Amino acid sequence: MAETSLIFPAAEFRARVARLQAGMERQDVAALLLTTPADIFYVTGFLTRFWESPARPWFVVVPATGDPVAVIPAIGAPLMQRTWIADIRVWNAPDPRDDGVSLLAKTLCALVPEDACLATPMGLETHLRMPVADFRHLTTRLGPRQVVDGTAIVQRTREIKSAAEIDRLREICTIAGRAFARLDEIARPGTPLEAVFRGFQSLLLQEGADWVSYVAGAAGPDGYDDVISPATATPLHAGDVVMLDTGAVRQGYFCDFDRNIAIGRPSDAVRRTHEALWRATEDTLAALRPGLRACDAHRLLWQALERHGARPCAGRLGHGLGLTLTEWPSFTPLDETHLREGMVLTLEPSAHVTDRRFLVHEENIVLRADGPELLSPRASQALAEIPA
Amino acid sequence: MAETSLIFPAAEFRARVARLQAGMERQDVAALLLTTPADIFYVTGFLTRFWESPARPWFVVVPATGDPVAVIPAIGAPLMQRTWIADIRVWNAPDPRDDGVSLLAKTLCALVPEDACLATPMGLETHLRMPVADFRHLTTRLGPRQVVDGTAIVQRTREIKSAAEIDRLREICTIAGRAFARLDEIARPGTPLEAVFRGFQSLLLQEGADWVSYVAGAAGPDGYDDVISPATATPLHAGDVVMLDTGAVRQGYFCDFDRNIAIGRPSDAVRRTHEALWRATEDTLAALRPGLRACDAHRLLWQALERHGARPCAGRLGHGLGLTLTEWPSFTPLDETHLREGMVLTLEPSAHVTDRRFLVHEENIVLRADGPELLSPRASQALAEIPA
Repeated sequence: MAETSLIFPAAEFRARVARLQAGMERQDVAALLLTTPADIFYVTGFLTRFWESPARPWFVVVPATGDPVAVIPAIGAPLMQRTWIADIRVWNAPDPRDDGVSLLAKTLCALVPEDACLATPMGLETHLRMPVADFRHLTTRLGPRQVVDGTAIVQRTREIKSAAEIDRLREICTIAGRAFARLDEIARPGTPLEAVFRGFQSLLLQEGADWVSYVAGAAGPDGYDDVISPATATPLHAGDVVMLDTGAVRQGYFCDFDRNIAIGRPSDAVRRTHEALWRATEDTLAALRPGLRACDAHRLLWQALERHGARPCAGRLGHGLGLTLTEWPSFTPLDETHLREGMVLTLEPSAHVTDRRFLVHEENIVLRADGPELLSPRASQALAEIPA
Repeated sequence: MAETSLIFPAAEFRARVARLQAGMERQDVAALLLTTPADIFYVTGFLTRFWESPARPWFVVVPATGDPVAVIPAIGAPLMQRTWIADIRVWNAPDPRDDGVSLLAKTLCALVPEDACLATPMGLETHLRMPVADFRHLTTRLGPRQVVDGTAIVQRTREIKSAAEIDRLREICTIAGRAFARLDEIARPGTPLEAVFRGFQSLLLQEGADWVSYVAGAAGPDGYDDVISPATATPLHAGDVVMLDTGAVRQGYFCDFDRNIAIGRPSDAVRRTHEALWRATEDTLAALRPGLRACDAHRLLWQALERHGARPCAGRLGHGLGLTLTEWPSFTPLDETHLREGMVLTLEPSAHVTDRRFLVHEENIVLRADGPELLSPRASQALAEIPA
């Protein structure tokens, strides 16, 4: 049983755990507590949409040596038993008297000596998916054991994707690329934007996405002022540029890229801005290398936009990608994370068309020793048009 | 600007805030800190799929008197400005030096006197959507102000749905009902279960869901042993019973119900078990009243299943529903939450077909003074069949 697993061979998960344990050894921690869907999927292969229910906490403990231990609600046992994890401890959740805290505390106390540390992610871009009151009870139950920040252990491990992960990421990017290639089937003058969103989600499913965790978009004659709102009933008009951005999922892995498309002839300002975004991406694809930092990627994109006559937007211009729609690092002037071979990243330059409105352009890459390899099919240089 | 709003009129949100503030007064707290998508949507109308990105925390503070204050990443300002919230404070997130902690601490210190309490949900079915390290910094910055558990304030308010909310919940239940009525278009002998899942999601979108946050299901000749796994490539066979369960979303509100359907003639054991689930639901629809507790609902369902000759499964037999796939309370023997008029709930009896395999049946209701009103179109008494 121990060598069967879901999504990937057990050897893939063992290699991940070995890398986490190397990071734990460097930081001298005796166990790592994981509580989020992505961290738990990364270590176990436990993939379910049941995380949508906030009712129950789920725990996986990675000890300094040996295999992980799952401490989970009983409802998850059949699925966890199909992963490579052999040590599965369950309770009947939700339990208002003790929702897994005693079972988790017992598990941790046996794995972490009294003078040692337990780590859990506590830093930027993390959260603890369990009730705060239960975390307080847990730390009391741990007695003298210290609870320290495990963010770096997790992030330095997860941010380097294996060959098997890159294959999955390429697959979902290819699926989304095929859906984007069919936008002319669903985006026409007069179609309400909310119907475009629904149609686009159906295209993604038809092309092979397991589910569609994220669709955003917007439309207007001079671009858009907001890229996170749900769609409205406003119909597309001739002269609009419409942007669709998706985080579709295949076997737990996300794409995250967008496409702009004009309904009829776009304005010169929109065409020029799109061309600058495309060229700035092209320049950055040529220049990005392992050893640069996230802030350097921001600078490359920013300077390229200016060189091509565009006015860059504030905000991040790219980020990590993998088991969630966005991962660290962030391409901002403040993020000094080193870019390394095997990182999967988005290049996401955005530039103003007017003071209020802008365009955003996004591609997904894997960083190789000699530079980026595209995972998303490259957008066309000239802004695509759907006849109005 | 203050009286425009998204999804509902501003008066709806003002009434919600007034009810929260009444709960805050009873518990003597000066402000309530909210961090999750559902709590923030409930108070503001801020609805976005951008929550899929774990990169940034978002905060809304409800003071003891007066309107809420949003303390959010700058990228969310245009959307928040379209809600009824007037006081919007932003920072450029993600910021590795200070990701909103100073701005939030300043906001809270101005609203909460030094000898008063701040509440945030810390109990069962909650989590804090911000980094643990930042929460520790925040509590330090709050000085002598105490941080206490606000779970009851939020849950006793949110669990009673307004007429406008019940309309939205009925709408998404009706949409899902239309999709379920078309299952014969996508579930046929030989169709892989993963193709059924994709097709069902497309049907939900075609029928008017904005997006599909949850689909689960399973198939087998004697029911299934697991209801949270993603679909596999295994094709449907004549004699299988297939179950599909969905949390589809319309304007931020979830349905959560399932349907079983047989591929050809089901076994007698499956038909008998389905009939018992249907009758147990019928009996509970007739008996449930405000004033009973969640554990009483469990008992009603359990005893009805036994009365109709079925063997009930362990685990909860229903739960709350609304802004997330599941809400409190839980129909278990341990949950003593009082059921009140205006609660939206699921009745979710499950019963064994064999020792390992079971069936689950689910309907969505709103509890009225004189008993349940169905929101989901009632399942047929006899297990539906698709010709094999």
